[in-house]
Amino acid sequence: MSILVVGSVALDSVKTPFGEVHEVLGGSAVYFSLSASYFSKVYLVGVVGKDFPPSYINLLKDKGIDTEGLKIEKGRTFRWSGEYEYDLNNRHTHFTHLNVFKTFLPRLPEKYKRCKFVFLGNIDPILQNKVLSQIKNPKLVACDSMDYWIKTKRDSLLSVLRKVDIFIINDSEARQLTGEVNLVKAAKQIYSFGPRIIIVKRGEYGALMYFNGKFFWAPAYLLDSVYDPTGSGDAFAGGFLGYLSTCNKFNESSLRKAMIYASVIASFNVQDFSVNKLKELSLKKIKDRYQEFIKLTKF
Amino acid sequence: MSILVVGSVALDSVKTPFGEVHEVLGGSAVYFSLSASYFSKVYLVGVVGKDFPPSYINLLKDKGIDTEGLKIEKGRTFRWSGEYEYDLNNRHTHFTHLNVFKTFLPRLPEKYKRCKFVFLGNIDPILQNKVLSQIKNPKLVACDSMDYWIKTKRDSLLSVLRKVDIFIINDSEARQLTGEVNLVKAAKQIYSFGPRIIIVKRGEYGALMYFNGKFFWAPAYLLDSVYDPTGSGDAFAGGFLGYLSTCNKFNESSLRKAMIYASVIASFNVQDFSVNKLKELSLKKIKDRYQEFIKLTKF
Repeated sequence: MSILVVGSVALDSVKTPFGEVHEVLGGSAVYFSLSASYFSKVYLVGVVGKDFPPSYINLLKDKGIDTEGLKIEKGRTFRWSGEYEYDLNNRHTHFTHLNVFKTFLPRLPEKYKRCKFVFLGNIDPILQNKVLSQIKNPKLVACDSMDYWIKTKRDSLLSVLRKVDIFIINDSEARQLTGEVNLVKAAKQIYSFGPRIIIVKRGEYGALMYFNGKFFWAPAYLLDSVYDPTGSGDAFAGGFLGYLSTCNKFNESSLRKAMIYASVIASFNVQDFSVNKLKELSLKKIKDRYQEFIKLTKF
Repeated sequence: MSILVVGSVALDSVKTPFGEVHEVLGGSAVYFSLSASYFSKVYLVGVVGKDFPPSYINLLKDKGIDTEGLKIEKGRTFRWSGEYEYDLNNRHTHFTHLNVFKTFLPRLPEKYKRCKFVFLGNIDPILQNKVLSQIKNPKLVACDSMDYWIKTKRDSLLSVLRKVDIFIINDSEARQLTGEVNLVKAAKQIYSFGPRIIIVKRGEYGALMYFNGKFFWAPAYLLDSVYDPTGSGDAFAGGFLGYLSTCNKFNESSLRKAMIYASVIASFNVQDFSVNKLKELSLKKIKDRYQEFIKLTKF
């Protein structure tokens, strides 16, 4: 099945207690695409500047990702720079330079409009809406967001939420959006906003899914070294939608398995900087770690 | 099977955003005893002052808990007062008055010395050692500790750890004891100190067990209202050892089930102040919630 993703394609500079990288491949659409590419054909929508290294585009193409929807505009590529503390849950952003992303108006190539699975990455909800309106009859639409949009474009975000099936968000954002500290109550309130599947990511503590009046708890994989958590939320979403796109039905069983595949991919992502780990995965490695999740949780 | 517990028996004053209680029944030995009492006969070792309400002792006796080892000394009972923020993970201690606990020297009644299961609650490791040395041939010994003892009596604590089977500790204490931020590495280091089973509690994020070179991840139950987390770690330990004391073997399967029973009991405990919830449980209620844990995690 085909998956469309819209989101940022970026040059990231990241420092963690375990190393540092400068202007490497990043961005929500990139982390998502690479993760989902192990399951399905991915169609990427985004924009970069003339300074974007062609080798990075080739890396995506080599993974079978369709980049016709990745516009190359005059100007500089979106850049993000951040630093993590020894406790990797604490992140500090040095700068976010939107650059060509500032004037980005996504227009989908014809073949993109027939994609059945859609991931609206963490961008301005007005753009998320614009992308969604161009897609004909999608089967399943998921979206992400962040504190900035919740604060500055709440109404647009709520308008997106009325149209999507799945909302993937982290715990602090779920609390911010609803004004509810308790995640059970927060998830139920978000359900009332529109999405029928709510996924709350909790970093090293795993993720929760609320579906059909029931909660599912996915653990995070236990690792003895975590190098860089950047992009893990998008890698999670890529694993989730990627696996789901191979399923005939979206029921309790397939959604729960998708949550575990999502956690599997996210766990690989944190083991190296940028997409270094994601780019060298295989379906076998993914399935092997899925088995590890069974061992981790079975009782 | 018989379980011996030594720990504090206290009068707690607790304030949370959801209410406030003054000088109510608390203490590690109390939370543990009541929790374990649903599975086995419990023998309690502790001390209270003359001011301790007899009704509280009767409450323990009514649950079949043997209180012959609970000394009533001249003076005032151990008191603790604390307050929780809206985010219940943040606790502030107003005061800890040791009172009669300051000069407590546990001497076990004869019948206590034959107990097969032992829980050394969070008290001075020198006292933990004194209790342990009086027990004849225990089958399984677990112990708890806290930041204060790790800091002030590290050597005594390490001497206890060399003699116990199970160490139950929370995540920040595991990090403090080992100097390791990463919990996988921390658990493995604690293993090298002596205990063959390491349990790391993570509050609302569940608990981890390290046994036989493998990790097990127990979730926490998802509740839409949490009133007071006081005593949950001891309730967890009570559920864990309580269930284990009904098993013939201590293997991967029974230990994992014990982790879930521990989480079940801890989840009940946070639903009300003091021991209000723990005192009214039944094995049926416990088993019903165990089934809920299966639904929460199955994939």
